[in-house]
Amino acid sequence: MIVILKPNPDQEQLDALIRWIKGKGLDIDKSEGTSQTILGLIGDTSKIDTDLISALDIVSSVRRVQEPYKKANRNFHPADTVVHVGNACIGGGGFAVLAGPACVESKEQMEGIAALVKECDAAVLGGDGFVTRNSPYAYRGLQEEGISLLVEAGKTAGLPVISEIGHISQLEAFKDVDMFAVGARNMQNYELLRALGQTGKPILLRRGRSATAEELLMSAEYILNEGNPNVVLCESGIRSFNTYTKYTLDLSILPELKLHTHLPVIADPAEACGHYELVPALAAAAAAAGADGILLDVHTDPMNAKSAAGQHLKPETFKKTVAKCKAVHECMKKEA
Amino acid sequence: MIVILKPNPDQEQLDALIRWIKGKGLDIDKSEGTSQTILGLIGDTSKIDTDLISALDIVSSVRRVQEPYKKANRNFHPADTVVHVGNACIGGGGFAVLAGPACVESKEQMEGIAALVKECDAAVLGGDGFVTRNSPYAYRGLQEEGISLLVEAGKTAGLPVISEIGHISQLEAFKDVDMFAVGARNMQNYELLRALGQTGKPILLRRGRSATAEELLMSAEYILNEGNPNVVLCESGIRSFNTYTKYTLDLSILPELKLHTHLPVIADPAEACGHYELVPALAAAAAAAGADGILLDVHTDPMNAKSAAGQHLKPETFKKTVAKCKAVHECMKKEA
Amino acid sequence: MIVILKPNPDQEQLDALIRWIKGKGLDIDKSEGTSQTILGLIGDTSKIDTDLISALDIVSSVRRVQEPYKKANRNFHPADTVVHVGNACIGGGGFAVLAGPACVESKEQMEGIAALVKECDAAVLGGDGFVTRNSPYAYRGLQEEGISLLVEAGKTAGLPVISEIGHISQLEAFKDVDMFAVGARNMQNYELLRALGQTGKPILLRRGRSATAEELLMSAEYILNEGNPNVVLCESGIRSFNTYTKYTLDLSILPELKLHTHLPVIADPAEACGHYELVPALAAAAAAAGADGILLDVHTDPMNAKSAAGQHLKPETFKKTVAKCKAVHECMKKEA
Amino acid sequence: MIVILKPNPDQEQLDALIRWIKGKGLDIDKSEGTSQTILGLIGDTSKIDTDLISALDIVSSVRRVQEPYKKANRNFHPADTVVHVGNACIGGGGFAVLAGPACVESKEQMEGIAALVKECDAAVLGGDGFVTRNSPYAYRGLQEEGISLLVEAGKTAGLPVISEIGHISQLEAFKDVDMFAVGARNMQNYELLRALGQTGKPILLRRGRSATAEELLMSAEYILNEGNPNVVLCESGIRSFNTYTKYTLDLSILPELKLHTHLPVIADPAEACGHYELVPALAAAAAAAGADGILLDVHTDPMNAKSAAGQHLKPETFKKTVAKCKAVHECMKKEA
Repeated sequence: MIVILKPNPDQEQLDALIRWIKGKGLDIDKSEGTSQTILGLIGDTSKIDTDLISALDIVSSVRRVQEPYKKANRNFHPADTVVHVGNACIGGGGFAVLAGPACVESKEQMEGIAALVKECDAAVLGGDGFVTRNSPYAYRGLQEEGISLLVEAGKTAGLPVISEIGHISQLEAFKDVDMFAVGARNMQNYELLRALGQTGKPILLRRGRSATAEELLMSAEYILNEGNPNVVLCESGIRSFNTYTKYTLDLSILPELKLHTHLPVIADPAEACGHYELVPALAAAAAAAGADGILLDVHTDPMNAKSAAGQHLKPETFKKTVAKCKAVHECMKKEA
Repeated sequence: MIVILKPNPDQEQLDALIRWIKGKGLDIDKSEGTSQTILGLIGDTSKIDTDLISALDIVSSVRRVQEPYKKANRNFHPADTVVHVGNACIGGGGFAVLAGPACVESKEQMEGIAALVKECDAAVLGGDGFVTRNSPYAYRGLQEEGISLLVEAGKTAGLPVISEIGHISQLEAFKDVDMFAVGARNMQNYELLRALGQTGKPILLRRGRSATAEELLMSAEYILNEGNPNVVLCESGIRSFNTYTKYTLDLSILPELKLHTHLPVIADPAEACGHYELVPALAAAAAAAGADGILLDVHTDPMNAKSAAGQHLKPETFKKTVAKCKAVHECMKKEA
Repeated sequence: MIVILKPNPDQEQLDALIRWIKGKGLDIDKSEGTSQTILGLIGDTSKIDTDLISALDIVSSVRRVQEPYKKANRNFHPADTVVHVGNACIGGGGFAVLAGPACVESKEQMEGIAALVKECDAAVLGGDGFVTRNSPYAYRGLQEEGISLLVEAGKTAGLPVISEIGHISQLEAFKDVDMFAVGARNMQNYELLRALGQTGKPILLRRGRSATAEELLMSAEYILNEGNPNVVLCESGIRSFNTYTKYTLDLSILPELKLHTHLPVIADPAEACGHYELVPALAAAAAAAGADGILLDVHTDPMNAKSAAGQHLKPETFKKTVAKCKAVHECMKKEA
Repeated sequence: MIVILKPNPDQEQLDALIRWIKGKGLDIDKSEGTSQTILGLIGDTSKIDTDLISALDIVSSVRRVQEPYKKANRNFHPADTVVHVGNACIGGGGFAVLAGPACVESKEQMEGIAALVKECDAAVLGGDGFVTRNSPYAYRGLQEEGISLLVEAGKTAGLPVISEIGHISQLEAFKDVDMFAVGARNMQNYELLRALGQTGKPILLRRGRSATAEELLMSAEYILNEGNPNVVLCESGIRSFNTYTKYTLDLSILPELKLHTHLPVIADPAEACGHYELVPALAAAAAAAGADGILLDVHTDPMNAKSAAGQHLKPETFKKTVAKCKAVHECMKKEA
């Protein structure tokens, strides 16, 4: 951590600051520039509150040098993490497809889609029972029954299943679900993250709509800190000034995260752009950008989907999209 | 709701769409332009999923005409709502000051600040017991004990109290707290909003960092829909490309919200900008922009505050800032 | 264009509005909903000012149905435009590589890089003579001499050349340059766009940092309207809240633009992310997302590059990146 | 400037870097932390390219400590700059109103509005002759004739005049205009800034839609560096995800700029929000936030304004808004 002082700091306040820092068990390296003095804090600064120091009258600004996340940090854990979900795995060089309808609607719907997803060698079957929408008047899904239908369809097809959990009180309903999805709205719902961390099960953690890369990794850190290493990060769109898509898919965060963390990273292009026509191109782009996998919304009858209808691929497009993603992923792995 | 069709739509699909819409109990007004056909949907469209329709091959785009929020909508409830908190009230022409430290640290701290806050005629005393930070390693506050100290300090000073609730499991600890604050991270934690709605107590609902005005009102709608009309909206900064402040205070939303909703609206400049030096100017600006009140972080010893130290006003600046805000508020109310 | 009226509009004002609209040669389709009345304006509304109408007391909002760009619009020009630059072409199914150093530094530098670029089958050689930086104290390039060195290097290598023009007064210096680049800062410098339009030469038009897709197409329209159809659009990063990259590469705009315009679209990942380590992944992602080509900064001695040093690929990485992009492009074109 | 090295840097590369830095006339303070080494560069680093250093394999990141603007920097010029425009002045404790129609339409229009503006004690009369719109098909104003009408109306009313200049070629037409306005689109049109700097006349420099505070000050630096100290900065809205206003007025930049620069700062709420209904509240908020003045669009017949019709205040609202702004400004100046 670096503390940049204002010009000509009051000596008494400076002495007090230095005593305070040393009281935290840190050493100080003082560098006197021509116009500014800089204090370098040496030691473990992860528990120092930068706000505290920047509030001082003599301080111009404070900058962290070390990243505040530890367990998610590639520096301290260089090898890629591979997350196992049933027989499937995410990370470690493969390309995992997680697919299903946005929400579970019926036994027939799930069986049809599960068979299709299985046919395309997808890794995980998805579908939400507890549907969350901005409006209190919107469709809320089949709730517990939806989760049961998903689990059943997964068993029949021989696929592990994933579903979004919105609240700790739903944990019991998820007992046979193989992987939790945490929605973008809940990326900083730390009570939920802690509770999920304690289950030890794999967790897909979506990036919040205005979360920085560091904030996403700090949320992962909440889970890892509970002793659960099975975290998959998911870029699913940030809020920007663009209105031609629902959110803006930020593919740059894929290679960026790969530099900073050992956790697998996947993308959800449909959730980001909100429109099926853009999904095939963006899914392939995610594969090229280094994603460890992709989330795809697929429906045998998109027109009658009960949620997020516009995001679903039709079966034929789904098959082609999966094939393209895998081909691009292979292409990127080949020696040039 | 308006459905704009692509040029030369397939007649069969168009007929199917028209049947589907009529099946929802809506009438249709069809307008044939020179290059495009538009369907106007007449009736209550609040439960129609725009995604469903925009997913159709023959549809170019879908636009809502009616606002999707009902109970928060000024059109259906023209008179300003006044929210009562203990003896204080927010909305209805006055200017309410809600103030306290970011977090409760000790009995002495709370007593000193409560006296100061009372002296300035503030309406509500605040302070968090359950402190939420991005890092799992950060200070988490005094928890239940913090809430008790807040409640006690409020009683001694004769002030109602507000504190941020992060999770339903904390409800019991908040039984003597007069007003709940919902943090920006929780603006779309609908389970929490529903549970708080059911308490009937006043709720301060902070805008999420990337929430639109409509999304904020839809979250208020979740609370109102539980039969609880006591919602105060709070602008506390949006995420923009600016890095010179922590978030960007969006004061335009104050007059904008006043046009669309009857609920009181206040601002939290310190939480938005993150730096005490900017707070006095922005607090006065919020008063000028039409805020029904203001949230201010104040501390008798900011340097040793345990959370958000850099956001706190010192007592002298706090007094002046409150006086300025009230003077500006009066100035705005006077006939020109 | 659709005009949505406020509830219970004043009849006199409504009559005045209807007369005004009809005076513009438009027909009106009036649709009376249960709570709102909507006017559909039928005819060529491209010259109607939406501000004018939305300013009226009786109007709630105004929405365009037709896109305001005509010559850039795929609806009126379904076939892909192919832009020819010397012997190379951009658009029409191929994948064009435009490459060179950010700025021209010397004859030796340009010869070395030109040979490398030629060896990789790039389409166009680039390099700026007039360097534009945020600081008036920064290096401004070799100016006219830089352009001469670029032209000469292009001739020797047998490659057409592109360079960024910042001002009309530089036109004379660009007489032997094959393609103009317009920088993001100049996307809405309409005087410059008109002047370049009149030259008839190919133009690479970069998207402004906060330009919408529509604004970009309206800027293209300025050029097309001068009778110059040779416009290539370029996504080079938008400003978002992300700080881990210089700008945020918005690849979604590639498939989105392809739906709306017939003009070729390329991407500049290095300019967007600002860091060479992310470029290979993002370049391949752009190819997968449907780019007609890519701009790459390459330098034989990046450490001593005089501008944008951190964005340059080293020769070996450049070669691999070009090969990957072309392989991904081929992969996307294959039948599934 | 601080250079943060990656862990275990290659010694040879480190020696080369140190030699390179010393070759630029800078001293180095090396600080060895437990996990990272930091180089503090001591001396004038304003001409060092941070990109150059961050491109090195051994460097993790580079951070500036000194601000890159010099002439605009309050540290080197503590006293507030006052800009004189005719008999009026902007900055120095007063509150200047700059007002007029968005565009000049006729002699009668300008005379009516000028009289109104004069009556309200405004400092400067505005109005554009060269109108710039996103569409090549939109109204472009009366051009030179518009400027003449503005100048004439100013003379009659005894008011200095301001108008937006879009291009150097218009300079001759502006010879009797007292103050240049530079539009948001042109904030980084450095050729224009240099040319205007050389005129020595007062310049209103609008912030670009996605410009940071530093970028705005660097653009001011371009003008100041030509020997022209008469720069007034203007916040007129940034692009954010908000769509309920045209742009988002960022009032926090007012007190922020006041900390960093001695130049006067004003706000243009109508240009930011795009809708007259929000202007009175936001104008007063700008005054409270510390603006040295305000730009207001006013029209005697807004419905028939030829440009930006929806942004204009009607005469009565204009008068009240000016009065409120001045009252709030006075209120802020009083001792608490």
